[in-house]
Amino acid sequence: MAVPKRNLASRIHVWARREEAVAQISAAGLADFASTDLREVTADATLIILATPVPFMAAIAEQLATFSLQPGVLVTDVGSVKATVVEQAGSTLRAAGVEFIGSHPMAGSEQAGLEAARSDLFDGAACIITPQDDTDRAQLSRLELWWSALGCRVSKLSPGAHDEAIGRISHLPHIAASVLTLAALKNDPALAKLAGQGFRDSTRVAAGDPELWLGILKENRDAILHPLRDLQEELGRVLAILENMNDEHVLKFLQDAKGLRDSCQHP
Amino acid sequence: MAVPKRNLASRIHVWARREEAVAQISAAGLADFASTDLREVTADATLIILATPVPFMAAIAEQLATFSLQPGVLVTDVGSVKATVVEQAGSTLRAAGVEFIGSHPMAGSEQAGLEAARSDLFDGAACIITPQDDTDRAQLSRLELWWSALGCRVSKLSPGAHDEAIGRISHLPHIAASVLTLAALKNDPALAKLAGQGFRDSTRVAAGDPELWLGILKENRDAILHPLRDLQEELGRVLAILENMNDEHVLKFLQDAKGLRDSCQHP
Repeated sequence: MAVPKRNLASRIHVWARREEAVAQISAAGLADFASTDLREVTADATLIILATPVPFMAAIAEQLATFSLQPGVLVTDVGSVKATVVEQAGSTLRAAGVEFIGSHPMAGSEQAGLEAARSDLFDGAACIITPQDDTDRAQLSRLELWWSALGCRVSKLSPGAHDEAIGRISHLPHIAASVLTLAALKNDPALAKLAGQGFRDSTRVAAGDPELWLGILKENRDAILHPLRDLQEELGRVLAILENMNDEHVLKFLQDAKGLRDSCQHP
Repeated sequence: MAVPKRNLASRIHVWARREEAVAQISAAGLADFASTDLREVTADATLIILATPVPFMAAIAEQLATFSLQPGVLVTDVGSVKATVVEQAGSTLRAAGVEFIGSHPMAGSEQAGLEAARSDLFDGAACIITPQDDTDRAQLSRLELWWSALGCRVSKLSPGAHDEAIGRISHLPHIAASVLTLAALKNDPALAKLAGQGFRDSTRVAAGDPELWLGILKENRDAILHPLRDLQEELGRVLAILENMNDEHVLKFLQDAKGLRDSCQHP
């Protein structure tokens, strides 16, 4: 929806695993060509975007590596974990002479499926692309242009640095939201009817698809444990502060957090 | 703004501490009469709503108790803590023969000031009113009608039960958001530029006014420590689960949290 709106491609081909999804995509007029046949969909492609859950990307890359793709084709993905994707899907493709660079547009919501699609999904969203030392510079510039033209604020990080950063800024909040939901409602689920906008916002991401998030947490476990331990430490610290209820310490805790939070506004 | 829109009062008088605030309210056409003189503002009132930070309510109630208010006047408040307000402001007023019933409309945001006012602020918001055993039944029905007519979903809880519930569903999320912000950004504040909508939503309430929240946390400390310890326990549990990375346990954790979160949708 965003690509034709911004005139970024002459044709859009969509692959989907299920015939029903292909039918839905065609009926919604979202593709010039849609099919369950990966070879047919990718035959003339100059840019291929893997948009499946992370655990399925390696197998798709293996298929792609056996096709005769166009010279100069670039493959990227939109997964939220990068080191394993680059190691697996990326290595498979590059061994077959196809350039792969990882992308992570931080758009979307707790919703899934075609119903959640919006043409302004990428407006102002952060997007991290993860070049390696030997990444083709022209392809890197092209990928940066692609996401910028879609409205993203693009940063570059190595795959490993991406996973560390995202473990802290995206995966940690997901687990924190789930933990908060359990601590608030497990003993008395009827409290949910008293939930205000603050609680709903603080826990929104915990409504995301559990299967999808299981995949993400598995792939990025090592980069998540460290920030989770930091969260545990900060929580212990504030508990001690509240137990003693020293005004100055409580105020400093609230001010420090507000200062950091205020730096997260949209640019 | 909501009261005239819904035709709920023939006149609106507003008291403010500072002359500049009075001028701002008058200039915006938000009151039939605005003044820094509490006696003048409340002389003909049939309903008085205390809307100052919680720590100031007792002193205002003491002033009100010395005035000749209208017979049948009802005083309520919009503070987010109830036991101390009912004990202090409430007892002072009731000793002077003026009925007081606490209210807590769970509307608003991390923003403060007149600029954040909206006529639809209360649409669909939960509002808890906190009657006591000897509360006048007619006044209670009247207060329930008031908040319902403003668009709220009204619940009744004792002041103590309110503070327990709100400690869990509102104050806990505030501290959790502050702790999450610190754990995510303290070591590397530059990560803020990678924050997506998930992080921004999860931490939004941490941008609230630190002074205001210091007051709330002080008033409701005892009802906050227990849920905070529950949060600590849940966090320890998920850390152990992720360290062992048993798919089934991680999935159950995510599913349990999603199930509870899904029950928090607007009705």
